[in-house]
Formats: sequence, structure tokens, C-alpha cells
Amino acid sequence: MSQTPEYAILLVCAPDKKGLTAFLTDMVYRAGGNILDLQQHVDNSEGGFFLRLVWDLNDFQIPRADTESWLNKTIPADMHMRWRLNYSDDRARMAVFATRESHCLYDILSRIHAGEWDVDLSLIISNHACLQSIAESQGILYKIFTIDKANKATQEQAMIRCLDEHRIDFVVLARYMQVLSQSFTEKYRDRIINIHHSFLPAFPGSKPYHSAHLRGVKIIGASSHYVTAELDAGPIIAQDVISVSHLDTVDDFIRKGRDIEKIVLARAISAHLQHKILVSGNRTVVFY
Amino acid sequence: MSQTPEYAILLVCAPDKKGLTAFLTDMVYRAGGNILDLQQHVDNSEGGFFLRLVWDLNDFQIPRADTESWLNKTIPADMHMRWRLNYSDDRARMAVFATRESHCLYDILSRIHAGEWDVDLSLIISNHACLQSIAESQGILYKIFTIDKANKATQEQAMIRCLDEHRIDFVVLARYMQVLSQSFTEKYRDRIINIHHSFLPAFPGSKPYHSAHLRGVKIIGASSHYVTAELDAGPIIAQDVISVSHLDTVDDFIRKGRDIEKIVLARAISAHLQHKILVSGNRTVVFY
Amino acid sequence: MSQTPEYAILLVCAPDKKGLTAFLTDMVYRAGGNILDLQQHVDNSEGGFFLRLVWDLNDFQIPRADTESWLNKTIPADMHMRWRLNYSDDRARMAVFATRESHCLYDILSRIHAGEWDVDLSLIISNHACLQSIAESQGILYKIFTIDKANKATQEQAMIRCLDEHRIDFVVLARYMQVLSQSFTEKYRDRIINIHHSFLPAFPGSKPYHSAHLRGVKIIGASSHYVTAELDAGPIIAQDVISVSHLDTVDDFIRKGRDIEKIVLARAISAHLQHKILVSGNRTVVFY
Amino acid sequence: MSQTPEYAILLVCAPDKKGLTAFLTDMVYRAGGNILDLQQHVDNSEGGFFLRLVWDLNDFQIPRADTESWLNKTIPADMHMRWRLNYSDDRARMAVFATRESHCLYDILSRIHAGEWDVDLSLIISNHACLQSIAESQGILYKIFTIDKANKATQEQAMIRCLDEHRIDFVVLARYMQVLSQSFTEKYRDRIINIHHSFLPAFPGSKPYHSAHLRGVKIIGASSHYVTAELDAGPIIAQDVISVSHLDTVDDFIRKGRDIEKIVLARAISAHLQHKILVSGNRTVVFY
Repeated sequence: MSQTPEYAILLVCAPDKKGLTAFLTDMVYRAGGNILDLQQHVDNSEGGFFLRLVWDLNDFQIPRADTESWLNKTIPADMHMRWRLNYSDDRARMAVFATRESHCLYDILSRIHAGEWDVDLSLIISNHACLQSIAESQGILYKIFTIDKANKATQEQAMIRCLDEHRIDFVVLARYMQVLSQSFTEKYRDRIINIHHSFLPAFPGSKPYHSAHLRGVKIIGASSHYVTAELDAGPIIAQDVISVSHLDTVDDFIRKGRDIEKIVLARAISAHLQHKILVSGNRTVVFY
Repeated sequence: MSQTPEYAILLVCAPDKKGLTAFLTDMVYRAGGNILDLQQHVDNSEGGFFLRLVWDLNDFQIPRADTESWLNKTIPADMHMRWRLNYSDDRARMAVFATRESHCLYDILSRIHAGEWDVDLSLIISNHACLQSIAESQGILYKIFTIDKANKATQEQAMIRCLDEHRIDFVVLARYMQVLSQSFTEKYRDRIINIHHSFLPAFPGSKPYHSAHLRGVKIIGASSHYVTAELDAGPIIAQDVISVSHLDTVDDFIRKGRDIEKIVLARAISAHLQHKILVSGNRTVVFY
Repeated sequence: MSQTPEYAILLVCAPDKKGLTAFLTDMVYRAGGNILDLQQHVDNSEGGFFLRLVWDLNDFQIPRADTESWLNKTIPADMHMRWRLNYSDDRARMAVFATRESHCLYDILSRIHAGEWDVDLSLIISNHACLQSIAESQGILYKIFTIDKANKATQEQAMIRCLDEHRIDFVVLARYMQVLSQSFTEKYRDRIINIHHSFLPAFPGSKPYHSAHLRGVKIIGASSHYVTAELDAGPIIAQDVISVSHLDTVDDFIRKGRDIEKIVLARAISAHLQHKILVSGNRTVVFY
Repeated sequence: MSQTPEYAILLVCAPDKKGLTAFLTDMVYRAGGNILDLQQHVDNSEGGFFLRLVWDLNDFQIPRADTESWLNKTIPADMHMRWRLNYSDDRARMAVFATRESHCLYDILSRIHAGEWDVDLSLIISNHACLQSIAESQGILYKIFTIDKANKATQEQAMIRCLDEHRIDFVVLARYMQVLSQSFTEKYRDRIINIHHSFLPAFPGSKPYHSAHLRGVKIIGASSHYVTAELDAGPIIAQDVISVSHLDTVDDFIRKGRDIEKIVLARAISAHLQHKILVSGNRTVVFY
């Protein structure tokens, strides 16, 4: 949806209860906010309530600096709401981690160039130098942190300092071939987006195209998900597939797979940037 | 969404204006209705407001017989809302029109048998006898109205009497090969669903697979739409496609096309039955 | 491809070697056969040669009764070819096994009615009576073999006698909810087609839609495969997928899944009937 | 298919006649060529014969310099074959034409960087300067030919000289927003690949996404085709689609469309580079 220049986006999770939607829409209406978009979902099997509410700030009477405390005061504690407030003119700061494969990075750079996303691509981190010239030709800072068994913990600490220094909001693993430690993933909970080159939960781990070829599948897939401590097991954000046949070798799987990897990763980044994702247990609500 | 046994479904169109969503949710909340599902959409280019609101009737205080008048009284005239109210335990009465091709009819019968839809398939009308035994083996009334140039107007009147007699709510054209007159389509405005065997607006009219083959397309499609006076030009509800190649003859196009025709038609019927469709000009809003 | 009334279809596997294609095409040409279609594939990773050769019988000089022995004599033993010869006017005899779910059976009956396949649907076997009336309304013989732990082996023997009696060429498991014993599957090696309601190898076994929902996938799939002794692990013939979202419950997964189950099963049956499938290890070559 | 280092690729069209495949395979076999891949297709409706034959050059006895004349001598004139011979180690020289939109160009550069194609991207031609820095950061020559009504014929002549000078084999129009003259398209017949941002034949010409939005379609498409004198009417090579909904504005159509435009264009380029395309009338045979 194309929207007016300035609007607020409120994401809410709560245990379901009568009147939550009426309460929230009424609250915004009384403060002068015109609701531009509302999507609400009740997960009947688990009793969860999920809502995304977008309102126009033109005649909204609460100053931006006071809105969070206004929400804290206005929402009754016994509604047990967890909420997140964002603004359309916030500009997120993204870091991309990559290794050698370039297709996802190129695709991201292409979208940055086209102005498709409201994001600052502030930093690229890699354990190799091989994508440095591409990054730098686009004027993006490229930092190399080589990783081996001995230095992994130390290097991760240095990477975190680097992310902090550049005030990074979220991290995209664009075919980054290192497993991040649990302390790293927990620090950036629901803020690290990975692309895995299989139709999860089939073929987690390394070499999924080889496994898929061996099994003789007729379709291959790609899955983007938030990274959690368990490898390739985090909440799935987006998936897509492409047909293969007996004519395709493992190399063909890899080549065809690249096209869906980059598209699926971009869809996940878009949804994240538009504050359309709520994580519920190990699943996501991705609003339309 | 699986839902509780009894709930109300309100579909609303209006010129967009501040406070419409808050007004409606508040109205339902004050009457004791727990909102189960809400989808709302503002078409910025045309200033239209569209909403689908579902609430639980368990503690709802307005008796069902009074709800329409309560809505009329409660909604201010200057909101210029057009609305439609339905209930989850309403059971629509559907008629299917068919000619010779059986795949869509079989598919509908299959869903009836599986209990996929809350619908009464009350009547099948055809201009041929060839599907009579299938219909009757499932215990469905099958009426033949043969059509030629001379009798068309008279027969359509007889068909309408038949639909009235069986209190038919909506009509599905399951590859019915007759063009309905304008007076017929206007009587059942937004209540006749057709399946056209092309990716509209490409290839309207007859023999679309022949035209598609001649043009050398690599994908063929099917489109379901509400029928209007202009042939194959009504508001599109659902579309889908399937790949073809140089190996496929026109007959292969026809055979492959059947699979998407029946699936796309079923999707449109499902959305119609769940009161998820609003028509706006010549387009549809199909809520998720 | 639409083809002339009578033609021969030769499927060949062999260890790859120079000259195999030239040998076979030359052999057919010298005997007066006009090649209508040829597809040939070399699997470089395993050195396998696969070919499907279709020729017109109009001017073919070998009498049909002698063709197999002509092939045996003409093809040198040191080519180690395994081959299968079929004719376009052979009419395979198919049995369908079902339990309670009717959508795949209806879909098969629909295609039988439309004359989509050159097949005789000679027999439906079930462990329940619930689909009997549908089958019999179409004039198809329906036999019930109830299965429990105690009688399974005996009943399978009775089923095999029944298949033999009706000279069944291949069996389709149309959501048949019993696991066939190893002796049964070996007797009908590469002649039992199953539809599994997941995107294999994800979610083998029972309740795949429940598992898929729990994992929070964004796409669900269906897979048809030849049945082997290991459950849901046989060579995959066809797969397809459909999108799901957080709005979909397990019941929605089941309902949406039915549409791809029946389509994917039908594609596998079509390929089998057209003699387009070669099994190589645990994978299939499915010619176009 | 992964293939051995050096092989020959022969594409053949002819009026269908008995023995063509046998003749060609035998001809190659007798000269020592091992057939690696063969696809053959007879278009029954028009009586056309199409073949793609790949053979290993390891033991092939005809020197490369003599192969074309060997084919001319060996193939009887009364077979009326048109053929084209290529080698796996030929390296085509490609020029890309672009205007302002960068997504297709980035995607091509990404594939060049990944080594996905055996091609030299020798030259980028544009009527604007805006993509110059991207091109030059990758070391690709970028030439600007501004076009207006007055200078169009002259500039096209200059462009052709430039293509000649760089020995360009084929041209890719990567969202190039100028219509090429008939004399230009005829000079590069079947050697100019365009990407059109609609599902042809729906919405040819300019602003297809606006037209699609106005019509209320539920799926949008992209089509790559060889350019002919008639705008957007040339033989289609590849097409793909993506779902849209009422939530999507024209800008969303444009944004979503970019993802299929670049993928579909890349598929067409791949098929062209692998010598998999034969043009027959206004249709293509695209071998697998």
C-alpha cells in the first residue's frame, strides 16, 4: 500500500480477549489518528491475538516523543500486550554478512540502487575479501573478519562491537557460511535474517542441493528465517520453490536455486523493513 | 480461519474518512460482539474504504432479527456506507450451469461430497443432457433448457423462474457455453461466477487455447470472474497459470488447462461463500 | 504430443557408451519405422544412458508379434540394455486403492469420464465402504478388504488374487491409509503409485499437515512416488506446492493440500500411462 | 546437463520426413562423434521437424575447420534442412541496451560476476548516462547514444557501427525504452532479446502495469521474446508470473514485476547462449 508521508506502525501480540481490537482502534481514534491499515489475526489453536495498526500522523495529537509513554499509560496492564511502535520515516540500519557467493549481495545492492527499500546499508561484513571490490564500488563499507576455530569467539565479539559502532538495527546473512554462536543470535533475536538454500525443514545444514539431487526431488526451494541458536530451525519468514528435472545436475540445482534464494531473501527483508512480521513461538505472522 | 459455531460477517464499502474503522469496531464492541477477524483496506488511488468484520455472536446483545435495523440506525447516513451482513450458519443455495465439459462439475461435486463448502447445490441447469447421469447419481436435480437463437429469451425467462422457485442465491457457470443476456446478468449482479479458460484480459471469447497456441505463449491461464453484460470483462476474482512448451499441442493446452480451470473456479466459489469479496468498479477486493 | 493412431514406445536404460542413440535410431529406421519422438538423457554423474523412442508403425516391417524377439536379436548383449516396449493402442488396466478421503478418487473418475487417459479403471479396492456408492454410480467394481493387525497378511494375499483375476497392470493409492507389506510392494515394483501429502522428504509418515503447521512453513506440498518397502521413500515422480500463511489452520492446510494432491497424483498417472518414466536407483527420469 | 569440455551443438529445422533423426545420428556416429544429448520434436500441426544434437568432439574425426562443409556435403539437399552449428567453447559477445531502470542490468552483471554464463559482456549502450557508473565499476564499456525524433535514424546507424566494431553476436534489451527501427531489428533477426513487463499478449506497449491494475488482474507477468518489427509481438522465449492482490498499488505491481522481469530475461539469455532456441514462424522451440 502506498501511504502518506508520515504514519505510525504498531505491532501487537497479546493473549486473545474480547474487545482488544475495539480498544486499540478507539484509542488511536480518540487521539486523532486516522487508521490507514489494520490487519488483525486470532490464532484459535493457541489463543494468540496479533495486530498491525497503521495510522496517519497528520492530525494525531500525541507528540512523537510522548507516544510510547502514552501507550504504556493507556493500555491496561491486564491486557498483557507486547507491542512495538515504528514510524514510516524511521530509517533502519542494515548490515549484510557474506562469504564468497555474490548473487544475494548483488541483488541487495540492486534494490538499494533502485531505492526499493527505506534502509541504510551501512556495513558489509565478510570472512573473505572476495566481494570487497563490489561493495566498495557501491561505496559500502566492507570489513573482513576471518574466522577459524581458535579465534571465533574473539572475532564475534569484535563483530558485535563493529555492529554497535555502526548502530546496526538488523543483520542479513546473504549466504554467510559461518554458524553464529548462541550468544550472538540471542543478542540479535528476531533481528538476523538468514537465507537457507532448501525448502526447510527438508535438507537443513550444509550441501542441501546435493542431498536434494540424491533424493531425486522434482522441486527445490529456498527459505528465509530468523536465526536462532538451533541451525536452520528458526521461524520461517518466506519460502519459494522452482521446478527441476532429471536433466538437472547438482550444479544446475545450485544455479537455479540462486534465483529463488535472492528473491526469497529480499521478500523477507521487505517484510522486516515494513514491520510486517511478528514472531510467535517458532512461527511467524507475516501481515500482507 | 476456523471459527466458533456462530458469528456475523459484515462487509462494508464507503468513501474513506477518518474514524470509520474505530467507529465500526466500537459499535460492535459496545453491543457485546467479540471481534474474531478484521481486515480493512483503503484504496488510496480512488479513496475507497473496504472492511470485513467478523464477530462472535455468543455474548452479542442484539437479536438476529433486529441486527439489520440496528445497523441502519447506528451507522450515520453521512458515512455513506454500503454494507452486507451474513451469518456463519446461513447456508447459501447454489445452482451450477454446465454444457458438455464435465471437469468443473465433477470438481464441484467432489467438494460437495467432502463437505468442503457450506452450500446447498440445489440445481444443475444445462443446455444438454450429457451430464445428467453424473448429476443424478449424486442426487442433484438436473434441468435441461435447450437454447437456440429463436428461443433464447423465452428459455432465459424459464431459467430465472426455475432459479426463483429453488431460491437460488448464486449461479456458477461451470464451462457453460451460452452467453447470458444483459437482463439475466443484471438480475444476478455479482452473483454469477464464470470460469474463463484464459489468462484474462488475454484471449477473451471463444477458443482461447487455440489463440494461445498460435501466439506461442509459454504459460496458459484460467480466470474466474463475476459475469457482467460485456463478455469475459467482469471483475476478476481469481486467476492461476500453468506452464506449457513447444511440445504441447492445442489438445494438450486444453487438457492442462482443465486442471487450473477447476481449481480457479473452486477458489472463487470459496471466497464468495465466505463473504470475502467486495466489488469495486470493475475490480474485486478479495480479503484473505 | 498428439500422435498418429498406432506407434511403438521403447524405453531404454543402459550404461552409457558411444553410439547407443545412433544404433537404436538406425535399427528402427532400417526396419521402416519413422521416428516421431526421441528423448535421450545421459546422467554424467552416474554414467547412465536413458532413452525414450517413439516410432510410427505404418510402414514398420516387423510384425508386432515378432518385435520383442527382433529387439532381443538385434541389440548386442554387450550393450547391457534394459528395455521395455509398449504400443499406443495398449490399454492399461488400473486399480485404485482408497480409504475414506474422496478427492483423489473423484478426480480420477472425472478424468476417466472425460476420456483423458487411455486406461481401464477396472477395480477399486478399499478397507472401508464409504466410497462404494460413488464408485458404483460410475459403474466401477468396488471391493472391500477390511484390514486389521491380525488379518493383514491374509487380506493382502486376497487382494493380490483379486488384482491378478482382473489382470491389473498398475495400482494407484488414492489416499489409501494402509501401509502395504514388502512382499506386496516388491510384486508390483514400479507399478504402485502413491500420493503423499507433503513435500517429500519433509514430513514423511502420518499427519504431515500437522507437522508442517507446527513448523510454520509458508508453502505446503504433495509428492507422488512409486511405492517401495520403505515408507514414503520411493522414487519421486511429481511434486507440486501451494502457498499458505499464518491465517491457515491445520484444517486449511488439509483443504488446500487436497487440490495439489489430486493434481500431482494425476500427473504421475499420466506420465506412467504414457510410458514416460524410467526408474534409476531411487530417482526417476520423467521424459517430457 | 554438465558436459565434457568440448562438444558440438547442431540445431536443425526441416520439413518432417521419415528417417531424419536416424540420418543425423548415423552421420555423427560414423564420423566418431559420441552423442551426449539429443532432443527432437515434430510439430504435427505444421509438419515441422526440430532437432538439437550435441556430440563429444574427443574422437570426432572431422577437423573443426571442415565441419560446416562436411555438413553441407553430407546432408542431402532434398531434406531441405536449415541448420546452425556451434561449439561449447565458442564464447558469444553480448551487448546490453538499457535506459534508466537498473534491476535487469544488475542481475546480468551479477551473473557475469558469478560466471554463470559463457559470454563476454562487451558493451552497454544507453540513451542516458544514469547507469554509467555501475557499468564502469564492473569494467564494462558504456556508450551513450541519446535518441530524439530527429536523430533516431542516424544514431541507430552509429549504434550498428559500434556493435560491428565490437563484433557483437546478440543484443539484450534490459528495459531499453526506445523502439528499434525495422531495419535494425531485421539486421539482428533472432538476435535481439527483449523483456516486456507483461504477460504477453496481454498489455503490449507502454505502461502495462497501469493497464493491469486498472483491469484488476490477480497475477502479473513478464515475457522475454525476440524482437521483430512489430512491437512486443515477436516469438516468446520465456514467461513467468507473480500473484498480486487488491492491496497492491501500481507501484507495487512495478516493484513486484521487477523480480520476474529480471529472472525471465535471464532465462531467455541462458537458453540463447546454450543454443537451445529455434524460431518457427512466430513461435519458439526451446529445448530443455
